[in-house]
Amino acid sequence: MDVFERMVEANRAYAATFEGGGLPAPPRLRLAIVTCMDARIDPMRAFGLEPGDAHVIRNAGGRVADALRSLCISQQLLGTEAVAIVHHTGCGMATFRDDDLRERLRAQGVVADHVAFLPFRDVDQAVRDDIALYRSSPLVRQDIPVRGFVYDIDSGLLREVV
Amino acid sequence: MDVFERMVEANRAYAATFEGGGLPAPPRLRLAIVTCMDARIDPMRAFGLEPGDAHVIRNAGGRVADALRSLCISQQLLGTEAVAIVHHTGCGMATFRDDDLRERLRAQGVVADHVAFLPFRDVDQAVRDDIALYRSSPLVRQDIPVRGFVYDIDSGLLREVV
Repeated sequence: MDVFERMVEANRAYAATFEGGGLPAPPRLRLAIVTCMDARIDPMRAFGLEPGDAHVIRNAGGRVADALRSLCISQQLLGTEAVAIVHHTGCGMATFRDDDLRERLRAQGVVADHVAFLPFRDVDQAVRDDIALYRSSPLVRQDIPVRGFVYDIDSGLLREVV
Repeated sequence: MDVFERMVEANRAYAATFEGGGLPAPPRLRLAIVTCMDARIDPMRAFGLEPGDAHVIRNAGGRVADALRSLCISQQLLGTEAVAIVHHTGCGMATFRDDDLRERLRAQGVVADHVAFLPFRDVDQAVRDDIALYRSSPLVRQDIPVRGFVYDIDSGLLREVV
């Protein structure tokens, strides 16, 4: 069974007992969370969310630069008015630099010098940088709270970055 | 209690019984899923995933254009070799056009004519478009399977788009 068949089969079981229909699109908690795509993070469980509660935006590193379009839509069209930025320990984004990945791609015949892959060295600093980037963007609301956290992948615990 | 306190408190309860530590970063199923930030989607449950199984990339609409950086990192550095693109019924992205949102922002003093917000009209076509966009990008592997699905927000069921 390939991964797609596995996914479709698991989904059939999920849908068989599904009771979450009829929820409205605007998030109940008026919250948008930006976090990493990392396979070890289960945002719904880890952050205590029920279906319908919050937008969850995920990308490599949980970087705000890649989330501005989504945050703008979330705020303008679906009424969110709080943002949590959650990076995590043990992130793959701390294991390389732009030039490393660009060279790796170049060896495969792919030129990616125009792509910022958004790696970082220090996770706390990356959270602070992403709050600063948020605060510098006209696309997103500046009159709402934005808080930054680091999720510990091995303890499951959130820590606020100040 | 504000939404951040709520999140931190729920997380404390989660961490108190957390047993998911020590997992490796590369996704066990070598799968990356691109889906929407919509609050009503719980990808882990809906697609039968355990922590550690798959990268989950989420943005407004589940659009591939916004996921290429993440997919490139996922494949080059963390070994994923299958991609599932999952859009959904009742998506907010089908309720506006670029010009609507740009005018709305302009009325707030924000010029966003340079931003493609990636709305769509037909969800099946949007999935096919995103597979085509994937297939046209040198940043991502072309020798691996990419499949497209629509998730029914009211039944919880996945349907493959062909």
